[in-house]
Amino acid sequence: MSGHLDLRATELDLEHAGTDLRSRFVLPDGVTYLDGNSLGALPVGVEGAVRDAVVRQWGHDLVDSWNTHAWWDAPARVGEVVARIVGAAPGQVVVGDTTSLRWYQVLHAAAAMRPGRRLVLADPASFPTDLYVLSGVAAQVGWTVELVPPDDAPRYLAKRDVDVAAVAYSHVDYRTGRVWDLPGVTVAAHDAGALALWDLCHSAGALPVRLDDAGVDLAVGCGYKYLNGGPGAPAFVYVASRHLGSFENPVRGWHGHAEPFAMAPEYAPAADVTRARTGTPHILSLVALEAALRVFEGVDVASVRARSLSLTRFLRDALEDLVPGVDVTSPADDAQRGSQVAVRHEAAYGIVRALHARGVVADFRTPDVVRLGVAAPYLTHADMLHAVRQLVEVLEGREHLDPAYAVRAKVT
Amino acid sequence: MSGHLDLRATELDLEHAGTDLRSRFVLPDGVTYLDGNSLGALPVGVEGAVRDAVVRQWGHDLVDSWNTHAWWDAPARVGEVVARIVGAAPGQVVVGDTTSLRWYQVLHAAAAMRPGRRLVLADPASFPTDLYVLSGVAAQVGWTVELVPPDDAPRYLAKRDVDVAAVAYSHVDYRTGRVWDLPGVTVAAHDAGALALWDLCHSAGALPVRLDDAGVDLAVGCGYKYLNGGPGAPAFVYVASRHLGSFENPVRGWHGHAEPFAMAPEYAPAADVTRARTGTPHILSLVALEAALRVFEGVDVASVRARSLSLTRFLRDALEDLVPGVDVTSPADDAQRGSQVAVRHEAAYGIVRALHARGVVADFRTPDVVRLGVAAPYLTHADMLHAVRQLVEVLEGREHLDPAYAVRAKVT
Repeated sequence: MSGHLDLRATELDLEHAGTDLRSRFVLPDGVTYLDGNSLGALPVGVEGAVRDAVVRQWGHDLVDSWNTHAWWDAPARVGEVVARIVGAAPGQVVVGDTTSLRWYQVLHAAAAMRPGRRLVLADPASFPTDLYVLSGVAAQVGWTVELVPPDDAPRYLAKRDVDVAAVAYSHVDYRTGRVWDLPGVTVAAHDAGALALWDLCHSAGALPVRLDDAGVDLAVGCGYKYLNGGPGAPAFVYVASRHLGSFENPVRGWHGHAEPFAMAPEYAPAADVTRARTGTPHILSLVALEAALRVFEGVDVASVRARSLSLTRFLRDALEDLVPGVDVTSPADDAQRGSQVAVRHEAAYGIVRALHARGVVADFRTPDVVRLGVAAPYLTHADMLHAVRQLVEVLEGREHLDPAYAVRAKVT
Repeated sequence: MSGHLDLRATELDLEHAGTDLRSRFVLPDGVTYLDGNSLGALPVGVEGAVRDAVVRQWGHDLVDSWNTHAWWDAPARVGEVVARIVGAAPGQVVVGDTTSLRWYQVLHAAAAMRPGRRLVLADPASFPTDLYVLSGVAAQVGWTVELVPPDDAPRYLAKRDVDVAAVAYSHVDYRTGRVWDLPGVTVAAHDAGALALWDLCHSAGALPVRLDDAGVDLAVGCGYKYLNGGPGAPAFVYVASRHLGSFENPVRGWHGHAEPFAMAPEYAPAADVTRARTGTPHILSLVALEAALRVFEGVDVASVRARSLSLTRFLRDALEDLVPGVDVTSPADDAQRGSQVAVRHEAAYGIVRALHARGVVADFRTPDVVRLGVAAPYLTHADMLHAVRQLVEVLEGREHLDPAYAVRAKVT
């Protein structure tokens, strides 16, 4: 009784044919990949770029490649590509290291920019690493962490304006896919004299971020989700240009030095955003990320967002049409919905495994969340409908209750 | 008049034929590569391993690879391979991040282990990043940095036993190749109640380190020099097992958590050395390093060292025989000489460039050092002699004074 959904999927895929970028990716046959919010798919061109970096640059040209293949400049060069994707003018983004390290850096830098202030606001529902890293920094700098959901932050900030050094939020909730009001919270933070720090892991490459327009102070994000940079791809950090002079990098590696090859004994930070660099960057991983970002060449993130919204709206509708009693926790409101649709179910882990056995790759987040990640460039409305139909068959066949799924994989 | 050196090179190469591992590397024709102490050559097998990681693991198996290809365990698994090379029993080494970040971690951890102590000893001739990172940590934890050369440390420590929290030295001087007395300085530090921290960048893979035997507390090293892991390869950190319970990781990323997928809001460090992990590791760079380390399969580092000593001894002798007035700053004493031979010359930069034009790749270190790095596994005594003869021709032809070399490359 769902033939109208097939027709609708076909209509929508025709309507959005102009933003179908699947040909820019290598994807295995028979798989509907709804986990691009954990590890983005492999873009065409990465294999060749990495092979060239290994065989020709490293193997043949050897150490000269720091100059001749501009390895040295890669963190800033790739940073400029990311900058365009997150709405930053040139000179404010560098790439490298992990998101955890980048988050550590911006928190430390924020503490140094707001001496004497003692509170930092964070979301109790943050991806855990954000809270873990923050707890370490707070212990070092003497901050007290106040757990305040992002939508309560403006009210909180209006009351406690003198004590808050920074707000440190994720743009999108990793479980529900809820998009928080980045511009509004940023303004509220500034009105209270606080800095606004944002983790863009679940928004960079998926929806327009407009860091400059929103007046964000510091931000970080990862390269391996919607930027498709490969497993553990280098992270990025954004430092608003007005803060470049006062950004203190806690990890004073030589790649952030004003004159790294002077080998001077004293640390002197670079005047530009490269002061946020640490040690020698992981070139092979950086080369993969750089090649992957070519997916975005000639592509406006707004068009990716339009496609994503259509896909997730259709996915939500199909779930509610076809799955009796489904509990969709991702917002119905387009403005509040990121690029995923989360379903809550007490047997979520079994559902994810049973879907996997049917070629639909989603992921599980403890304790009861099935995350259906929607990386718009390589997915279609037909994929959405296929995934929902597989879910229906899983549930009808009680496949998710298979005792084999009682034992969880190490990495979930 | 140097035919006896050809004969000697041939004899020595025959004598050391059993440790010639050149067949385990891909090296370009016509190049004598004396810069493996900056970027090690490409080992056979890396290209295939990286391609497999990109195409099959990432591209085809996608996010499942965290389990099915054991990406999650890579930092500890590769750490065990490095552990054997640096003389550490299992369970004390993890790989990932940059050397700068690893150095930052061990300095912070040391401060937390020695609360109330206010001094840290460092070598004024350290590779600059070690001093830069230390200056940042010192400012955070309230340390005063005392610049004391490693060979003066025992005397210093005997006088100032109550105040020193840690000594933070490099095993080998990056300019001269001087090997410092790691066991002796470690004992002196312990006698003063201080911790011994060592940077092994210029010794790991080049000479036996014997961390456990020496009682070293914490150590770090890079993957891209004598370990041949590729440009910006992940670094490693060693935490002596007796310190695992008290090692406080300043960067509390979720990969160092006791139960990362519990997604608990509170940070709880892993009980084992994986507590030193930070965020999601750069898998492609890790895969390259893991494949590169197969060079050491079935190889005792002592045999690499024996070959290296013969090569550098012969190189020193040939320089002194054939280059009038040569100023070799690397020690003549085998026990004090690392795996390089440094020559001081006021036109060092021009010499390095002119040698390069002749296919001999060395490197320049400001202001006046020509570094001839000797990565023993893929070099021969004949290579040493060839390099010296090219140097003679450069100097005789005054090629190093070419005005083109007045402008230095960005990365030197």
